[in-house]
Amino acid sequence: TIAQLDTHRELRHGFPEVILAQGKKFAHLNAITSRALNHKRNLLITRIGKKRAAKLLANHPQLTHHPLPRCVTWQPTANQPNIGLVAVLCAGTSDLAVAEEAALTARMLGAQVETHYDAGVAGLHRLLAASTLLQTARVFIVVAGMEGALPSVVGGLVDRPVIAVPTSQGYGASLGGIAALLGMLNSCASNVTTVNIDNGFGAGYVAALINRTSMP
Amino acid sequence: TIAQLDTHRELRHGFPEVILAQGKKFAHLNAITSRALNHKRNLLITRIGKKRAAKLLANHPQLTHHPLPRCVTWQPTANQPNIGLVAVLCAGTSDLAVAEEAALTARMLGAQVETHYDAGVAGLHRLLAASTLLQTARVFIVVAGMEGALPSVVGGLVDRPVIAVPTSQGYGASLGGIAALLGMLNSCASNVTTVNIDNGFGAGYVAALINRTSMP
Amino acid sequence: TIAQLDTHRELRHGFPEVILAQGKKFAHLNAITSRALNHKRNLLITRIGKKRAAKLLANHPQLTHHPLPRCVTWQPTANQPNIGLVAVLCAGTSDLAVAEEAALTARMLGAQVETHYDAGVAGLHRLLAASTLLQTARVFIVVAGMEGALPSVVGGLVDRPVIAVPTSQGYGASLGGIAALLGMLNSCASNVTTVNIDNGFGAGYVAALINRTSMP
Amino acid sequence: TIAQLDTHRELRHGFPEVILAQGKKFAHLNAITSRALNHKRNLLITRIGKKRAAKLLANHPQLTHHPLPRCVTWQPTANQPNIGLVAVLCAGTSDLAVAEEAALTARMLGAQVETHYDAGVAGLHRLLAASTLLQTARVFIVVAGMEGALPSVVGGLVDRPVIAVPTSQGYGASLGGIAALLGMLNSCASNVTTVNIDNGFGAGYVAALINRTSMP
Amino acid sequence: TIAQLDTHRELRHGFPEVILAQGKKFAHLNAITSRALNHKRNLLITRIGKKRAAKLLANHPQLTHHPLPRCVTWQPTANQPNIGLVAVLCAGTSDLAVAEEAALTARMLGAQVETHYDAGVAGLHRLLAASTLLQTARVFIVVAGMEGALPSVVGGLVDRPVIAVPTSQGYGASLGGIAALLGMLNSCASNVTTVNIDNGFGAGYVAALINRTSMP
Amino acid sequence: TIAQLDTHRELRHGFPEVILAQGKKFAHLNAITSRALNHKRNLLITRIGKKRAAKLLANHPQLTHHPLPRCVTWQPTANQPNIGLVAVLCAGTSDLAVAEEAALTARMLGAQVETHYDAGVAGLHRLLAASTLLQTARVFIVVAGMEGALPSVVGGLVDRPVIAVPTSQGYGASLGGIAALLGMLNSCASNVTTVNIDNGFGAGYVAALINRTSMP
Amino acid sequence: TIAQLDTHRELRHGFPEVILAQGKKFAHLNAITSRALNHKRNLLITRIGKKRAAKLLANHPQLTHHPLPRCVTWQPTANQPNIGLVAVLCAGTSDLAVAEEAALTARMLGAQVETHYDAGVAGLHRLLAASTLLQTARVFIVVAGMEGALPSVVGGLVDRPVIAVPTSQGYGASLGGIAALLGMLNSCASNVTTVNIDNGFGAGYVAALINRTSMP
Amino acid sequence: TIAQLDTHRELRHGFPEVILAQGKKFAHLNAITSRALNHKRNLLITRIGKKRAAKLLANHPQLTHHPLPRCVTWQPTANQPNIGLVAVLCAGTSDLAVAEEAALTARMLGAQVETHYDAGVAGLHRLLAASTLLQTARVFIVVAGMEGALPSVVGGLVDRPVIAVPTSQGYGASLGGIAALLGMLNSCASNVTTVNIDNGFGAGYVAALINRTSMP
Ligand SMILES: Nc1ncnc2c1ncn2[C@@H]1O[C@H](COP(=O)(O)O)[C@@H](O)[C@H]1O
Ligand SMILES: Nc1ncnc2c1ncn2[C@@H]1O[C@H](COP(=O)(O)O)[C@@H](O)[C@H]1O
Ligand SMILES: Nc1ncnc2c1ncn2[C@@H]1O[C@H](COP(=O)(O)O)[C@@H](O)[C@H]1O
Ligand SMILES: Nc1ncnc2c1ncn2[C@@H]1O[C@H](COP(=O)(O)O)[C@@H](O)[C@H]1O
Ligand SMILES: [Mg+2]
Ligand SMILES: [Mg+2]
Ligand SMILES: [Mg+2]
Ligand SMILES: [Mg+2]
Ligand SMILES: [Mg+2]
Ligand SMILES: [Mg+2]
Ligand SMILES: [Mg+2]
Ligand SMILES: [Mg+2]
Repeated sequence: TIAQLDTHRELRHGFPEVILAQGKKFAHLNAITSRALNHKRNLLITRIGKKRAAKLLANHPQLTHHPLPRCVTWQPTANQPNIGLVAVLCAGTSDLAVAEEAALTARMLGAQVETHYDAGVAGLHRLLAASTLLQTARVFIVVAGMEGALPSVVGGLVDRPVIAVPTSQGYGASLGGIAALLGMLNSCASNVTTVNIDNGFGAGYVAALINRTSMP
Repeated sequence: TIAQLDTHRELRHGFPEVILAQGKKFAHLNAITSRALNHKRNLLITRIGKKRAAKLLANHPQLTHHPLPRCVTWQPTANQPNIGLVAVLCAGTSDLAVAEEAALTARMLGAQVETHYDAGVAGLHRLLAASTLLQTARVFIVVAGMEGALPSVVGGLVDRPVIAVPTSQGYGASLGGIAALLGMLNSCASNVTTVNIDNGFGAGYVAALINRTSMP
Repeated sequence: TIAQLDTHRELRHGFPEVILAQGKKFAHLNAITSRALNHKRNLLITRIGKKRAAKLLANHPQLTHHPLPRCVTWQPTANQPNIGLVAVLCAGTSDLAVAEEAALTARMLGAQVETHYDAGVAGLHRLLAASTLLQTARVFIVVAGMEGALPSVVGGLVDRPVIAVPTSQGYGASLGGIAALLGMLNSCASNVTTVNIDNGFGAGYVAALINRTSMP
Repeated sequence: TIAQLDTHRELRHGFPEVILAQGKKFAHLNAITSRALNHKRNLLITRIGKKRAAKLLANHPQLTHHPLPRCVTWQPTANQPNIGLVAVLCAGTSDLAVAEEAALTARMLGAQVETHYDAGVAGLHRLLAASTLLQTARVFIVVAGMEGALPSVVGGLVDRPVIAVPTSQGYGASLGGIAALLGMLNSCASNVTTVNIDNGFGAGYVAALINRTSMP
Repeated sequence: TIAQLDTHRELRHGFPEVILAQGKKFAHLNAITSRALNHKRNLLITRIGKKRAAKLLANHPQLTHHPLPRCVTWQPTANQPNIGLVAVLCAGTSDLAVAEEAALTARMLGAQVETHYDAGVAGLHRLLAASTLLQTARVFIVVAGMEGALPSVVGGLVDRPVIAVPTSQGYGASLGGIAALLGMLNSCASNVTTVNIDNGFGAGYVAALINRTSMP
Repeated sequence: TIAQLDTHRELRHGFPEVILAQGKKFAHLNAITSRALNHKRNLLITRIGKKRAAKLLANHPQLTHHPLPRCVTWQPTANQPNIGLVAVLCAGTSDLAVAEEAALTARMLGAQVETHYDAGVAGLHRLLAASTLLQTARVFIVVAGMEGALPSVVGGLVDRPVIAVPTSQGYGASLGGIAALLGMLNSCASNVTTVNIDNGFGAGYVAALINRTSMP
Repeated sequence: TIAQLDTHRELRHGFPEVILAQGKKFAHLNAITSRALNHKRNLLITRIGKKRAAKLLANHPQLTHHPLPRCVTWQPTANQPNIGLVAVLCAGTSDLAVAEEAALTARMLGAQVETHYDAGVAGLHRLLAASTLLQTARVFIVVAGMEGALPSVVGGLVDRPVIAVPTSQGYGASLGGIAALLGMLNSCASNVTTVNIDNGFGAGYVAALINRTSMP
Repeated sequence: TIAQLDTHRELRHGFPEVILAQGKKFAHLNAITSRALNHKRNLLITRIGKKRAAKLLANHPQLTHHPLPRCVTWQPTANQPNIGLVAVLCAGTSDLAVAEEAALTARMLGAQVETHYDAGVAGLHRLLAASTLLQTARVFIVVAGMEGALPSVVGGLVDRPVIAVPTSQGYGASLGGIAALLGMLNSCASNVTTVNIDNGFGAGYVAALINRTSMP
């Protein structure tokens, strides 16, 4: 068998089944999707391009395609609503796809999500404009490419956990996101942890997990 | 002035003042410590070697030295007790210093902490022996050097946030902890975020923050 | 002459002629294939894409194409059957192509091969489900991308040699497989050796060699 | 001859002779210093440790040692006073040595220099406290280790050139200053250029050059 | 909202609005451009390919496309003329696009610009042929790929600031411009600062800033 | 507890307990050694320097110190004699310590070992002088620093498994053994697998495991 | 002007004009070619693809295209015949293009060239078959990808200069030729110098230069 | 035996025996030296520190120590005088040790050597001062650290082979000589080949070899 669906984990977590589309042949992706749909649980497919998404929806019309975050979802079950609020901030317009992947993932896991975009550190007033969000969210997802400085600045402004997501935006010495990643790992703010380059999914997942631990 | 103490942030966070000793001349470190002690708030000094710690304690006898995690503390105020439990696991005996730095930091921030050490993935029974801890902790700090695989395995066993701490333990292609760091950033478990190599402090800090959001 | 066929080595090894298709102009590949076929020995061509395989089969209809492992073979001679069993495990569905290249290579060299796929460390029950295979195989090929942790876990469960194959699956800080490679080189399990990223061929070759030394 | 003193360049620039002490045997350093002193021009020796400085001063008592920036100077001639103001900012107390090397160099080249230290991005109020300096300086030298984010924030606040100096402060993934260097090279602020890690000298030199072009 | 236009910064700087096209979806780029045009200020769009430029001009016919430097501009307002002269030199014909991006940017910011191309260090007479320019410019932008040695040589010939721009020209061990970048960062000339690989824009921007500080 | 001794694995493998001394505080190392000695099984301690070994032997006089391979052993039980022969070859005199660590480890695991040293590829006659060993060994351990070419040459001469061990010998672009490691991972010989830089232990362990599978 | 033709160097060297086509826009390449042809001297254009070569020959029918080494040449003048012999060896069929570029270049510079291909170190007999060439050539160009071991072996067999050319052939940890490059730089043979990855041109050029110094 | 002396190669080359001291235990170094001295041939020991040299000379008083190039030699036989001239140039005073190692090696191999030091590219007049040497030498060794630009400039001035030697001089982004190495590998001068960082020995060896091929 090409794949062992992890339904055990799914039950344990109360979370949707997740499939990483990238790197899978379409036939394999399609077969795994079919099996997952049979479980009648919420489903999130990440890192899927336009063409493969269209082909998959042709076979499984119940699915919904989200082109910007490059995801496909199915939500037969309503989310378990969480109490806390997850904030998703990003530094530039080019980071939108990753930020939206984080937001969609956190929502699929029951979190309330609010976004504030294009608030990079070279124009601080754009960040400070989000002061209500900065004061009320329980967890922050901060997405940035190039030098990846935004999480440090946000980390200094809030006393709650910040999940930093480096993006591959930039060129030359950005090294496909390595510069931003290193910046975030070396953050001088103490409340920052980091996920892989462009891993909006992981950030949304952990943010929702943290948020959920806040429920009474 | 050589340093601007961030008492503002301290009040905001309800957390101790923290000083990173590494990289500071002793005269600067000593002066900053004096000023911090004047604030009569809890104090945590990290990454301080034996000799410098002894010199500092000679000047400030109220301080306590913790040689294994290489920290110095002062706790005039009792911690705000948190409800949740933070688990600190590590892969090998060589990772102890970093694990203890994480545990001490989390405790300084009011968390209840339980540890389980030397539970590397090449002998799974040693991890599974900690099943009660795996089921009860609200946040996990997982410390590992060499290939850094332990956070992925722990991440697959629990449905709560895992903070992965790569250590510089190893030799050759471990590249001073880069191998472990990369492994953790690429974890196939969705609930893992990562901090810098040997950054037990950061992991303990964020774990306590997450834990605190759980308080009613 | 563009190539010196190593028929000497072929006789010495009792193994098939192997051609690495990647990097060769088609005209050269075709000419070398013709010469190899003249030797009437088993032939294995690796890392050959769909289009070039089709063109090659058009010229040499006796060849067989294996699209998933991207190989072309000819087996005029039955394999020397080996007694031992080679296990091929992989972490995720995306690692299948490399795992199948390893399995095909080992079979071409006379090994009995059994596979167990999609058994990554973030869901340990999927690995433990293969307990019979874990107890009976003489050599293990363990294929994994991303953090590449599976070989360490398998290595801890068995007392036989484990050949680790990192794959280029992943993104961002996976660095095209370097993260998995470093993880495997730094394995805390003592029975692990490593081959190049995506080198299913090499792993299958060595596994069959080890397996063959087991024959009475 | 072991060294060709560049008196030509010295005259051309109206600037002091500069000797990089690091990497030179003491005998060579001493001989070059003797020759330079004969020219009766201002002299700046950089990257010289305590012991070698003491030995050099024993031979040449007219020299002055500056231990924090690790420099030795001789100033027989008064500086050509420049009109503009050079601001030197740094992120943390650990960056002081490099910041002071920049300040000393710029002063040796005739610039008026004002400093503002320990103003890292995780506590923005500490930077904003320097608003007069931010408004009046003609050139900014911004020194930072770890994630190196301060130059981007300063760059966004001022409309004058910012010279970013990464330092080797940090540990683990700071890679001896590479993380800070990459951050600065990828700055999203348009007015930032960068010099080598710990190169306070170069930053001070260029800042004074820019400042000088401002003279009527 | 997908983008927060930084009109504040624009006023502050007296400089045009700048949009980095790379990494933005066309719909986003188009929307941001529309908003920027409404401000009736000078506009510079960088790193935009032929096809996207054509599409953008179809929507906004007032724009001008500059294919070699891969830019699009709109200049409703005449530049504030600067007094000083900016020199743009490059090492090889392959560096032209980046050199032209620097020149165009500096001109958009009011600088007088003169260029001298294909003057690499392996044929020094080609550089020395530009002696008038070397003597008269106030700031130098020096663009080079491969080993990136030209800024050091120019830096030794002039007593004014040199902004070094590494390009991604080269192959193999040029590592996409990293070799040139490292060369420039390690320049033995004291008057050299560096920007990101292929960042002609940044170099032109800072050169114009420095040039502007020279105005009476 | 600071360490969980893996006696389970020990029984399973029929192999000695192994302790990696590097990275452990002496107090921890000593305590683990005491516990291991209580098990009355063979013991191998690796990567232990002269001073720590002397201190350990002072506490545990039954131990034997092997200075060249930097190991300490105790062998209360005779080895299970294996039938096959393990060959250990090395390229230069500087690789001796690692080669001896491999040989000692393989012997501790019951293998018959023969060595042939200083047989680097720049003087092929020195390798060919070992033709009997090349024809009779069942497994080859090939240790080399600098360019690490020896395993490829040996791999082409024999039809049995070759375990390549890169060493950190060399300077400059040898990058502490990375050059040799990369060379071995890219070997054009099909029968080569690789272990970590300087990991003589791992190579000896796997060689003995392979050798053992050969027993009737 | 976009390019300054280096006719000075051409006369000095007695060598052809050389144009690196890669990285140049076609219009620029074409203009430079026209000017070069006007000089009526031998011309060598390197790193030019099929399509661009065809377009160039359409404009300049006197040119000759060499598809395998990806060059275009014009030879109005007969070569100055050199006395010595340049040997070009390569490790695998995939290295042919680079080897042929080296051979063509050396011939364009007047050298007598003999080639021996597909003689990688994993089958030494293939190299030893070229013993006459090994004994008679004055300079050796040795081209190899993957682990790049061939130059060390050749270097040990001959007492004349060996120019090593790493190629980008390989995959995974070959890192686009970096593995081979590092191997060659760390060669334990004393008579080896190295050029850039895939730089057959540079190797052929220097080989011909060395060869020429041998003329009476 | 710990070492196989390569007397075969020695005879073949007509060159001295060479021992690389670095990485060898003193006992091994001493034993190899004894054996080499028995051969009564010229002997060159490289990369040997002061203390080990003193110890070695105590045992073997016929040896001569050269502290700057860190070598030990014995020359019972007069050199075979070569006709050609080898030029050794270096960029800065800090590169002297490597330059002297190159000069000593070339002299040990019979070459006539002339040196010209501290002629870095940031002060071109210092290089041009050596015009006679530039016109007369048959081979050039050019030693440089930091950005390593000198070989390209020399390469453009002469029509003979240039051997570039990067040194580990510099700091920060010089990466222990990697920056200089990459610069040299990417030289835009066609007559440059490169050796390992700090490998003065290799450069001197090849230069003498090339020089020797010039003898009638
Ligand atoms: N997929 C592969 N990866 C690495 N090495 C291979 C692969 N396939 C074949 N080889 C090796 O390459 C040799 C053939 O190389 P070539 O002469 O270039 O066809 C074979 O003998 C194998 O040792
Ligand atoms: N700390 C420094 N970092 C980088 N370059 C320096 C430094 N100090 C001096 N230099 C440069 O090195 C030159 C002197 O080098 P040297 O001839 O080796 O003493 C000076 O003219 C400066 O250009
Ligand atoms: N030199 C070595 N290199 C790599 N791994 C080793 C080495 N020595 C021991 N080990 C492994 O480390 C394990 C012991 O680790 P520890 O529990 O930290 O003592 C052993 O079981 C081996 O798997
Ligand atoms: N400084 C050096 N750098 C690189 N290779 C060297 C050096 N000195 C000697 N060698 C080479 O190392 C060989 C001797 O190596 P060994 O047998 O380890 O003494 C000599 O024949 C040279 O080829
Ligand atoms: Mg923006
Ligand atoms: Mg352990
Ligand atoms: Mg899976
Ligand atoms: Mg501070
Ligand atoms: Mg040119
Ligand atoms: Mg040797
Ligand atoms: Mg071949
Ligand atoms: Mg100098």
